[in-house]
Parts: sequence; C-alpha cells; structure tokens
Amino acid sequence: MFALSDIQAAAERIAPFIRRTPLIKAEALFENITEAELWLKLECLQPTGSFKVRGATNRLLVTPESQLTHGIVTASGGNHGLAVARAAAMAKVPANIFVPATTGREKLDKLAAWGAIVHVVGNVWDEANVNALAYAKEHQCAYFHPFADPAVIAGQGTLGLEILEQLPELDVILVAIGGGGLISGISAALKSLKPSVRIIGIEPEGSPTLYASLQAGDVVSLPAVTTKVATMACGRTDARVFEQVRQAVDEVVLVSDEEMLAAARWLWFEFGLAADLSGAAAAAALRSGKVRLAAGAKACALVCGAGKDALV
Amino acid sequence: MFALSDIQAAAERIAPFIRRTPLIKAEALFENITEAELWLKLECLQPTGSFKVRGATNRLLVTPESQLTHGIVTASGGNHGLAVARAAAMAKVPANIFVPATTGREKLDKLAAWGAIVHVVGNVWDEANVNALAYAKEHQCAYFHPFADPAVIAGQGTLGLEILEQLPELDVILVAIGGGGLISGISAALKSLKPSVRIIGIEPEGSPTLYASLQAGDVVSLPAVTTKVATMACGRTDARVFEQVRQAVDEVVLVSDEEMLAAARWLWFEFGLAADLSGAAAAAALRSGKVRLAAGAKACALVCGAGKDALV
Repeated sequence: MFALSDIQAAAERIAPFIRRTPLIKAEALFENITEAELWLKLECLQPTGSFKVRGATNRLLVTPESQLTHGIVTASGGNHGLAVARAAAMAKVPANIFVPATTGREKLDKLAAWGAIVHVVGNVWDEANVNALAYAKEHQCAYFHPFADPAVIAGQGTLGLEILEQLPELDVILVAIGGGGLISGISAALKSLKPSVRIIGIEPEGSPTLYASLQAGDVVSLPAVTTKVATMACGRTDARVFEQVRQAVDEVVLVSDEEMLAAARWLWFEFGLAADLSGAAAAAALRSGKVRLAAGAKACALVCGAGKDALV
Repeated sequence: MFALSDIQAAAERIAPFIRRTPLIKAEALFENITEAELWLKLECLQPTGSFKVRGATNRLLVTPESQLTHGIVTASGGNHGLAVARAAAMAKVPANIFVPATTGREKLDKLAAWGAIVHVVGNVWDEANVNALAYAKEHQCAYFHPFADPAVIAGQGTLGLEILEQLPELDVILVAIGGGGLISGISAALKSLKPSVRIIGIEPEGSPTLYASLQAGDVVSLPAVTTKVATMACGRTDARVFEQVRQAVDEVVLVSDEEMLAAARWLWFEFGLAADLSGAAAAAALRSGKVRLAAGAKACALVCGAGKDALV
C-alpha cells in the first residue's frame, strides 16, 4: 500500500532534522517482562519528544512554500501537535494546534514553548479535528493530518528502516497505535525489507480503533473513546491505514490505561526512561502478558514518546 | 596515580552487569549552549540510574565473599547508595545505606525498592558517613566508600574507556564532581590513552570541595556545604583523589544549584532526558557560560544520573 521507495526518500529528506535514536538492549534488573531478547528503541529522545517529528518533518518538506503562507494547522493528542509546531517554527510560519481536553499540562506547556497557538476543543481527537479542519479552511492554512496522510506515514515508516539497520536480526516489533499512522509506515517498511518480522499493534482498551475495525472487516467508528491516554485516543481510523494494517500487521492487542502506567513506571525504574503512556504501551503489552514471545526472539518495543506521567 | 590496567580489568569484570550507554550527538532545537560539537553520554540509563553502578559493581566483584557475610554498608547522597543496594542484591546480602536529610524522596523510594535498609543521618554526606563507618565496624559489614577507594575509582574510570571507544576524536569532557571519584577514574583513563583531552570538573558553588583544595594546594575541609544537590555535596575529599585531580584535571568550575536546575530543564525539553541535578551539572557549565569551548571542538558532557528534579 505504502511504497518502500517513498519511505526511503523520506528518510533521506528528514535526516538533517531528526535524530538517529539509540536502540538499547533492555536487560531488566528486577522484573523481566519477556522471555525474548528485548530491545528498546528510544524515540522519546527525538526532537519534541516523540517519533511524530519524522512524519511532520517529511510532510513539511514535501509541501510547497506557497501553501505554507498562512501557517500550519493540525489536531493532535499532543505529540503530533508538538512535531507540527516545530515544523512551523522551522518554516517560520504560525502553528495552530487543536487538542482535546484530555491533553496534559506538560504537552500544553511544550506547545506554548514552541510558539504554537493552542485551541482546546472537545474531549477526543476527532472533535478537535473537526475544528482544526474548519479553521484551516477558513484561514487558508496548510493542514497536516496526524495519520491519514501518505507523507506523514512515509515519515513514520523511516523508523522501520532505522530499526532494521540497527538490528538486522529483528524477529518481532511492538508498536503503539493511536490513529494507525506509525504502524502503517513501520509495517510497510518492514514487510518490504524483511517479511518474516512479526508486527504487533497495541491499542488502549478504551480506544480499540483498529482492533474493532479488523473484527468488523471494515473501518468502524467507535461508539465511545474512554482511554485517558490522549496520544492514543482515536474514534475512527482511515481507510488506507486500515487496509495497510489488515494486510501487514499480524496482531492487535489491547492494554488498559493502568497497564500502561505500570509499564511507564517500570521503564523509569529499570532504565531511567521518562516515557509517556503511549511510549509505554509496547512494554505494557509484554508486562501484562497480553503478548508472549518465544525465548530468545529478538523483539523491539518502541518507546515512542517522552513524558512524566509515571514520575510524578 | 590510578593505573590504566586496573580500569581495563574493571571494564572486563563489570561488563556483564552494567549497560554500555548511548553517546548521542546533542544538536539542540531551541537553545544552543555551546559552539562545540556536543555529545551527551547517557549514564542516566544505567542500572539504578547513574554511573555509580560501575564503581560499586567493581568493588563488589573484587571483595572476597567471606567479607560480605554481614552485608554491605555505605553513605551516599543517593546514587552510590542505589548502586551499592543493587550490588548487595546481586550478592544476596543486606545493604545498610546512610543518607543525609537532603536526599530526595525519589532516591529513598528507589532504595526501598532495592530492599536496602535506609538510615537518614545528618545534613551532609560527611555526617552520614561517620555513622556508616561506625555501623560497619560494629556489625562487621563490608564498607564501600563512594569515592576514596581504588576499586570504585577504577569502576568509574571505565566510563573514560567507553567514551573514547565511542568517540575517538574526543577533545574535551565535562564531569560533575561530588567527592571526586568519577573524575579521578575518568581522568586516569583518558590521560593515559589520549593526553590531549581536556578535562573539566564541575562542582556546586555550595560544595566547592576540589576547587577549594586546588586553590589551597592541599585537601581542605569546607567550612560549610550549602548546595541542595545531595549527590554532589561533600565537605572533604580524599588525598589520592586530590592528587589525581591536581595532576590530570585541567580546570574545575563552579555552578549554582539554580543553573543545574535550568540545565536539567533544558535536557528535558530538548532531549526528553530526565536527569538529576548532578546529571545536569556538565550541561549547566556550558549553558551558564562558565565554560566556553571552541567552535567545532568535540565535547562530551556526562549526563551522569537520572532524576525528576526538573520535571515536577
């Protein structure tokens, strides 16, 4: 669905503006959460604190300057908004970021530090997004969708290339899902280069967007989104994302908000890593026993975002 | 003073029990703090959250089992105590850790999690240490000094070897000083292998132990220790440490507690790193302008410990 060549082009395009984050072997001290050989990919060390900077930067660099005159708009649980705010700062144009009321103070402060104009609207991303779209239309701004955009997905997919360069022996990867852009890009890259890699998506029990769509065999709108994890809350995914996940993702599992919090605490205690709850989702799937891996399998858990949820 | 061969032996000895932490190129997004090419060595990702695990593990592994029967005792601002608590857990013997009242709740909680028995005594490390020594004598415990111990210093020195392997072009390194064990080990390693590397020590204005001793030309006892940064508070260093620093360290500069807090916030905002205040000391020296480096020089700032001081 999404072409490897687009992802490779994105990798070259964004390289000067993002970090090549470390992949560390995660031998726990106290509490081993899997029989597998676990590696953590530290996307929490990216500029703006998450992998989202990959997609937003790629989107910026493929957008003609003439479309940026009136600034950039998006709707986000926080991390994509921060990445877009930074992209706008790079382009020296205004950023208007629409966030739901569940977005934490920490992300709001960071958005302000990047100079973004923040609009808090609604309780879930989808509501904020309706307003973002209307604002973009009214003010002729560029709109950067957080996941349903091939340029954003190609940017996120660069993570797949990078992990495979760092760990060619990769057997299985665990990826958090909000709208599904990250896992679409990563699965497109990995299934092209190494089809044997098993790809596991992780959604919150309170926002099982892809899980429900896969069960229904088509994109569905969730009747309710109840997770408190704003960066993973999404009531409806996109048709192309759904198709990519259906074809390339081996399994989608659900974890509770509490399991993510406990996993974030585990990351802090064991590794000194300050992950946000979506950043702990992959570890939560292992720690809760929702995903069991074979002894010795080389497994990568994405620590996709930074945050202090588990530290305070 | 401290032999390279001891440091190399330590590196081999402790390798199975510590992490080879990432060295990341630190291109800031917002606020560049130096003209140099800055690299951050992420010792905050070590087991127990700091480099201290290197020295404590080496000390454990050179101590005969017969001396460990009654457990291990130390006095620590927090990080060495955690490393000793882990060492005791590895050896399956009790750990009694004496800390001053300035040690933060976070470190106390982690000590408890490691199963250590914690004694809060006095306001500075030196007072806690008097009690630790008395306890060790009375109960026939092994006592692991946080810095005035060649085995501990050799362990810390492994950081010098590792950084030089990761960045052979290293020109200058900035190292936080509490009692001086870390900079003793690192300077011994670096000056043996690459004498041209400039070594800069950083002390708190409120605990200028080595700074004052260097000025006096001999080890002095500080009349008062006023820093709130427990992991860097030390009223008097050791004669061998002093001699090593006098011979091998190019400069010692002082930073305020506030400058360290601001630098820790900078590390969090720019890199998603949760450093404790000593972990931010090296960055504080650059950010405050106390240390100015030549454009393009390859500089390493140690992020020597994890903490949430700047996040809450």
